[in-house]
Amino acid sequence: MEMNVQEPVSIKYMQVINVCDTETIQSSDILSVEEPLEIRIIYGAKNERKQKNISVTMRTPGNDVELAVGFLFTEGVITAYENLKKVYHMDMNCSFQKENIIVVELVENFMPHLNQSDRNFYTTSSCGVCGKGSIQSIRTVSIFQHIDKQPVALCATIFYKLPQKLREAQSDFSATGGIHASGLFSIHGELQLLREDVGRHNALDKLIGAALMDHLLPLNQYILLLSGRASFELIQKAAMAGISVVAAIGAPSSLAVDLAKEFDMTLLGFLKEGRFNVYHLGKNRFIPAADEITG
Amino acid sequence: MEMNVQEPVSIKYMQVINVCDTETIQSSDILSVEEPLEIRIIYGAKNERKQKNISVTMRTPGNDVELAVGFLFTEGVITAYENLKKVYHMDMNCSFQKENIIVVELVENFMPHLNQSDRNFYTTSSCGVCGKGSIQSIRTVSIFQHIDKQPVALCATIFYKLPQKLREAQSDFSATGGIHASGLFSIHGELQLLREDVGRHNALDKLIGAALMDHLLPLNQYILLLSGRASFELIQKAAMAGISVVAAIGAPSSLAVDLAKEFDMTLLGFLKEGRFNVYHLGKNRFIPAADEITG
Repeated sequence: MEMNVQEPVSIKYMQVINVCDTETIQSSDILSVEEPLEIRIIYGAKNERKQKNISVTMRTPGNDVELAVGFLFTEGVITAYENLKKVYHMDMNCSFQKENIIVVELVENFMPHLNQSDRNFYTTSSCGVCGKGSIQSIRTVSIFQHIDKQPVALCATIFYKLPQKLREAQSDFSATGGIHASGLFSIHGELQLLREDVGRHNALDKLIGAALMDHLLPLNQYILLLSGRASFELIQKAAMAGISVVAAIGAPSSLAVDLAKEFDMTLLGFLKEGRFNVYHLGKNRFIPAADEITG
Repeated sequence: MEMNVQEPVSIKYMQVINVCDTETIQSSDILSVEEPLEIRIIYGAKNERKQKNISVTMRTPGNDVELAVGFLFTEGVITAYENLKKVYHMDMNCSFQKENIIVVELVENFMPHLNQSDRNFYTTSSCGVCGKGSIQSIRTVSIFQHIDKQPVALCATIFYKLPQKLREAQSDFSATGGIHASGLFSIHGELQLLREDVGRHNALDKLIGAALMDHLLPLNQYILLLSGRASFELIQKAAMAGISVVAAIGAPSSLAVDLAKEFDMTLLGFLKEGRFNVYHLGKNRFIPAADEITG
């Protein structure tokens, strides 16, 4: 796959007034940049190439290729790295000079699944708009639903250390204090990939996009750590990437738990040093000591 | 306006395994429910009524009327309470019996602004997709952009107490620990309205929808408190409702600050007991003591 992308800035310095008790101080602060990104695809046979706008998302600039590729994959529009031909920022001819349109060219012999692209998991099911319907729809588009997932041996003490590892690795987080993160860890607790964004779904799409381009999918032998809450959308994306263990520092929603059960994904919540809740364990199991883990 | 809506459940009890150090305990946990809500409108002249699906959002059930009305207002589809005729849940004839489609009937003589309804603030501007273009587009659709906003006298000590007041009022939050809130306070720090949701944009749409139906708009003499980060989307919704003071417990994004400046909205971030940052003050001003405030 060919890439032609400049990395845009993801943080911005600005003057703020810091009010503390009765004191007021002029100081400098670092903000996470938020800008829209439009994702377009070009597809079709050689002499009949078509262009289509797939989505506009508010994102933190940076890792735009991963974000676009990850989004297309987790929404079911593409199914493999081999579908991709070329990815580039479109020259907008705009006085503000922002890299806010990314074009993903697909190979000629691949037909994208465009009926999935309007986030319309909700409307494809026979029962109309409901969570159960959404779950059933995802089941039909996940390419990893039939892979044989070997049970993973998990160790509680390894999980206890993950939030601290994520925070230490979040360079942007420590700077701006306002950004979501998704971290991919080995079963032994080693950080493999970390992506950040003002939008939590974007952070996960960037991570899954990076993993897809690194040929790591399906991610059934990894732990996904979410810096905040576990919503349905995040668990849906994790399911699409074949992830079988998800831990969230925040709470899961009811539908996130339902989806984790449907995909037999281990889902932990409220993870902190020394404790967590297990919302669904599935066929994975906890063992006492870290040195007994077989990945 | 006529309403015919049953309030669905917003929390769900479930059994979890609580892992704490080396102990494992079966316990019960309360989750925030997350379910899709499809918002449809019916509009047009008496003999030519049309139906259109406007949006599907993942939301916490409850206050669905406010959410639908608030969303339509903050997206610029409707501009006043008087545009509404009737709001009701559609019978889905679905075995799961969820109230996940809400229909908003508009009065015959009002034409909804449907070009705004695809969240396409991004694409209507001449410069294409960029934050600056988004801000300019919002300026053109905000009905309160020309109102004469009197400067508001603000008191730091009043802000210091708001996060605690919000937490105390968040009954769902204390139960599930996993839900966003938007709180509307008077300039004197009294809580007027509180709405919660798994999606932060939904919590704010519910609040603005409630305020619209209470004839409180424009909200230029109130403080909006956000339980988390201040993103562009939230500031955009606040701007649409004429809110002139926003305080966030988390960080703002760069584009949120840009938009606050454009609308001359006071924007505070990292608000906690005894401190906050001022990202934009505008013509409002801080005074030392609470008893000097004139609302």
